Order: sequence, then structure tokens, then C-alpha cells
Amino acid sequence: MDLVGDLDSYERRDWDDGTVDDTLRMAVIGLGWFGHDMALPSIRTADYAEPTVVVSGSPDVREETAAEYGATAIDYDGYEAGVATDDYDAVYVATPNALHPSHVETAAGLGKHVICEKPLAATVEGAERAVAACEDAGVRLMTAYRLQTDPRIRRVRELVRDGVVGEPRLLHGNFSFRMLADGGDPDQWRLDADLAGGGALPDIGVYPLNTSRFIVDREPTAVSAETCGEGAFADVDRLATLLVSFGDVTGSFTADFDAQADDELTVVGDEGRIRIENAFEPREQRRIGVRRGEHSATIDPAPVDDLREEFDYFAHAVLTDGEIEPDGRDGLSDVRTMVAAYDAAEEGRRVELDG
Amino acid sequence: MDLVGDLDSYERRDWDDGTVDDTLRMAVIGLGWFGHDMALPSIRTADYAEPTVVVSGSPDVREETAAEYGATAIDYDGYEAGVATDDYDAVYVATPNALHPSHVETAAGLGKHVICEKPLAATVEGAERAVAACEDAGVRLMTAYRLQTDPRIRRVRELVRDGVVGEPRLLHGNFSFRMLADGGDPDQWRLDADLAGGGALPDIGVYPLNTSRFIVDREPTAVSAETCGEGAFADVDRLATLLVSFGDVTGSFTADFDAQADDELTVVGDEGRIRIENAFEPREQRRIGVRRGEHSATIDPAPVDDLREEFDYFAHAVLTDGEIEPDGRDGLSDVRTMVAAYDAAEEGRRVELDG
Repeated sequence: MDLVGDLDSYERRDWDDGTVDDTLRMAVIGLGWFGHDMALPSIRTADYAEPTVVVSGSPDVREETAAEYGATAIDYDGYEAGVATDDYDAVYVATPNALHPSHVETAAGLGKHVICEKPLAATVEGAERAVAACEDAGVRLMTAYRLQTDPRIRRVRELVRDGVVGEPRLLHGNFSFRMLADGGDPDQWRLDADLAGGGALPDIGVYPLNTSRFIVDREPTAVSAETCGEGAFADVDRLATLLVSFGDVTGSFTADFDAQADDELTVVGDEGRIRIENAFEPREQRRIGVRRGEHSATIDPAPVDDLREEFDYFAHAVLTDGEIEPDGRDGLSDVRTMVAAYDAAEEGRRVELDG
Repeated sequence: MDLVGDLDSYERRDWDDGTVDDTLRMAVIGLGWFGHDMALPSIRTADYAEPTVVVSGSPDVREETAAEYGATAIDYDGYEAGVATDDYDAVYVATPNALHPSHVETAAGLGKHVICEKPLAATVEGAERAVAACEDAGVRLMTAYRLQTDPRIRRVRELVRDGVVGEPRLLHGNFSFRMLADGGDPDQWRLDADLAGGGALPDIGVYPLNTSRFIVDREPTAVSAETCGEGAFADVDRLATLLVSFGDVTGSFTADFDAQADDELTVVGDEGRIRIENAFEPREQRRIGVRRGEHSATIDPAPVDDLREEFDYFAHAVLTDGEIEPDGRDGLSDVRTMVAAYDAAEEGRRVELDG
């Protein structure tokens, strides 16, 4: 059995049918750190997407950003009122989690397709509203799970599907970093339980959870959990630990806002093991270690801008009416599991899920 | 901060006060695979211990083994009747888990010190009996947690105590192998729930659990768990997944009897991370990876016979009346946690522990 395979496969866009020679014009809703610093540069360099509108509550930020990108600047009132709708075909929602549903509903009402940052919402009801709005309006909705469109992670799923680990048995994943070290802002919305829907779990814990579902092709059937937080993290989960059953596979996932930077996912099967190091951070050099019996191989794939891949995947799907695997219902599933995890932690019991 | 430190420290016997020039004469109770193939060769090469008596129910095995080691062979009736007590000072119990308590009680009744394989017993009551018998008789009792006397693991604890990872936050550990691949015996006692006290959890899952307690110096306060098993593993937990709270630290531990061979333990703190690869198998080449911020170091310490270290630690402690850290109560603690984990899995709830 080949543990590594064709190197090209680690950067291949297996979803690209080569028919698109157009670009999707995108409005970026929310110019915080992620929208402005991380997403916009990738949308600009994308093959099938371009940023044509930027939406922010800050006049300075939106005007400067609009000038930099040759885009149209509007504020949230303008976005909701349908200003400049001729200038964009789709929106990218990068606002605080609790605001996602209304920003998605606005887009749906305007007939615009949507890619919405994870988690899809801060509550199950919010995520359901977002899904329903897009389905009712007949617009596409993608949850921005860039791991699912990262060719290196897609390659890992392929290895699992090809039987490299045999039958998957168990998963271990962690995503941690020190949010407030080196001048991190203790007043940011990610530490506001209402705006974020929680703490480390929805912000970073959703990565090992969603990526595991993607890689082992299974849905959660039950969750147990523990959470804790103190000091600047008193209102949220600084640390969340989840024990997730996926039928015949169990996953152990941790996320911590105040721990050594670390992001890994390991799947152990009856015949092999795959570990992704540097698994979740954007634009990171992922390392993929594969073991099968006493053989092992490590691959350091060529660098990939996983944000650009994500926006190109979304734009390509919209322009070709193709499949969007990380759709709204995919995002809704994780919101359900995370809310169930909080219930499990609070009530000290296993919470069953639909699977 | 020094991430690696003095190389000698990875093979140092920090417990050896250099005063012992005697050897402890040991009776090995049970000549199955572990007692015969693994332990006896190490007792023979130990500095402070020697095998002088062997106990087995099989005449051929005990006679051949006695001849090979120049030891006295007796059967279980003889052991219980006090035959050859002048020939040994202490016993090593390597019988099936459910039989440990009575074999420990026999030794205590004979005034012999005891090192007993893990888990200390198959039930909490059994472990309590073993502890009480030795305390009442005034003999020493060690639970055979060879990781605690492995100089490389002791060095990891020292690194944690020295603050290399800062405040410990979370742990991930796995111990898995394919018990029945390559001709493994499906009728072995480790797959008999009554004799073993469970399946993968007491046999191998106890390693990440006990080693974590040792390394982060904390006791479990609660446990949630999932177990599953099928086919040849239908009577036991083929896979056990534990979510263990240690107050302010949580641990995610898995053990599987039918998964890719893998044994690792990772502790993530607010300032660093330490991972032990090849963490639990006997006589394995452990690899210790240390990260702190953006610095990292990997050390492959010189080979150590961790079984010999364990028997020398025990013998030294008995001969000097020194501390035995992995004592009977240490073994009892893990039996309590494992039994609580089975309750948690069955009842779908978090089970609180004394801490």
C-alpha cells in the first residue's frame, strides 16, 4: 500500500472542472482581523473570486480598505438596505458569531449567495434561521470550513477512504493558543459568551470536530464534555474537552485559549494511523505523518493558501452550480454538537445526538 | 530555559542512595508471558534483586524456569502453604488481575514484601484487600507501574515540575495495539472480564491514566467515558475512551485492543508542551519532544531496561526502608477511577471521584 502517493495530489483542486473563466464578485461583511487581514488578501488573489464591496461600521476602516482593493465601501445600514447590490454576487460574512444569522438573512433577502464564517451561528436557532433563509431564497450557503477545501486535508480523507488506516477507531485533536499573550485584547468579542456562543469551543474547538467528521465520514451520535475558565476567561470556556461518539469511532477533542500554541489531529485505525501536525491554523505548513504497521512516512506538502482555496471552491461551486460540501447544514450540525457539549458539561451527562 | 538538560538525567536513578550492596531475593508468582518472558530476565540482571523462587501451576514451566534461573520451583499450593519461605524475601505477582489480591494476601501473611502487577486488582474491593493485607502485616506493597521508575519518565516529571510547560492544561494519551493479529490468543485471560476486571482499560489504558497522575501531580476528580467491543472483544472494552478531570487539568485517554500499535502521552501547558512517543511499551526507545513557545527540542534518550529499573527501585526501597511512590494506594486509586469509568460509560454520566 502506498502511504504517500502522488505529490501533486496534496495541492490538487479535485473539485475544479476547468470550465470557469469568470469571477464571483464578493462583498466582505465585517473588516475585523480575520475579514480584513486574513480573508481579503486571499479573495484578491483567488482565481474565481474578487472583492468588490466591503462592509464595516467604521468609516475609516471601510474607506481605507475600499481604496486598497478598488472596492465599494458601505456601512451595515447600507448593506441591509440593499445599497450597491449591482456590485456583488455573493457575500462573505466575517462578523461576530451571534450576528451571522441576520447578515446571512440580509444576503438571502437580496438574492446573494453566502459563505459564512464558522461557527455558522452562536445558537442552534440562529444556525437554523441562516439555513432556512438561504434555502427559502434559493441562494447557496457555505460554512467557511477551510480545512474541508484544503487540498492537503482532502488528501488525508482520500487516504482514509483508501483504507490506509483500515477501519477508523479513535481520534485525538487539539487546537490551542495563547489568546491574550503578546498584547491580545481581553475585550474582544470572542470572549463574550453572547456574541461568540461560547469560548474556545466555537472559536477553535470546532476545527478538530468538523475536520474529524469530514475525514472519517461519520456524524456525532453523543457527546460528553468538561469546560473551565477563570480570570479573563471567566465568562466562557477557556478550555473545552469533548468526548464525541461517532457510532463506532470516538473522538477526544480539546480547545484552549490559554495554552501553548498547538494544533493537531490524529486518526488511529485498526491498520494504521494518520496525524496532521499544524492542522488548523490558516496558511500553516501542515505536516502529515502516516503509519501502517511498522512502516511510516512523513510528508511536508508544498505551501498552500488554504483561504484562497476556500474562496475559489465557493466561487467555483456558485458559478457552476456545483456541490458545496461544507454547506449550511454542515455548519448547523456542529452548532448542535457544541450546544449539546455545553449541556453535557453543565449537567454532567452524555447528551445523545441524532447522528 | 533549558528544554533538554543534562543527558545523564535521562538515565539517572535519582532514588539510589548508593548504600545498598545486598540483593533482595524474589519469588515470581505466575510464569505467563509477562512474568516469564518480560520480568524474569530483568530481575536476573537487576543490581539489587535476584529471582530465587518461581511459582507456576504448570510443572514443566516451573521446572524449566527454575533450572534456567537456578531457582526453587513451587506450585500455588506450596506458595500458599509457605513452602520455601527461607528462599525469598519478597514476591512479584504476575498472575491474572482478579487473582492479585489473594496472592498479595498470601505474601503478606508470610511476611513477604510485594510488588504486584498493574492493575492492582480487578475490583475496588480486591485492591482494598491487597492494601489492607500489606498494611496490617507491615510489609511493603508496590504497584508495578514501571513508567514511574523509568528514568526518562521521571525526567519528564522533573521538566514539568521545573515549569517547562508552565501550568499544565490538558493531556492526551493513547495506548493501542492489535492483540489478536499475528496469532494472538482469543482465549487469553485479558479478554475475560471477570479475570481481568475489564478489557483494554485495565490492561493498557491504565498506563496513560497512571502516568498522567504521576507527571502532573494531580488526582482525578471526575470521569466520563465511552466503551465499545464486538466480535472477539464482545465481553470487554475493545476500545475505552476516558475524559478525566484532574481539577484544573483534563485528560483524554484512549486504549484499544484492535488498533494500530501506538503509545503516546502529551501534556500541554500554558507555556509549553511535552510529548512522549513510544511512551508505554516495555523496553521501548522513548522519544521526548519538548516545545516552549516557538522553540522545540527532541530527545532520544539512551536505551533503558525499564523493567530492571522497576525491580531495582522496589528492591532498593525494601532494603533501605525507602519511599515507594507507586504504592498500593496508588494502584487502588486507578482501580477506583477505572471502575468509575465503566459506571460512567454504562450510565451516561460524569462520575465524581474523591480527588
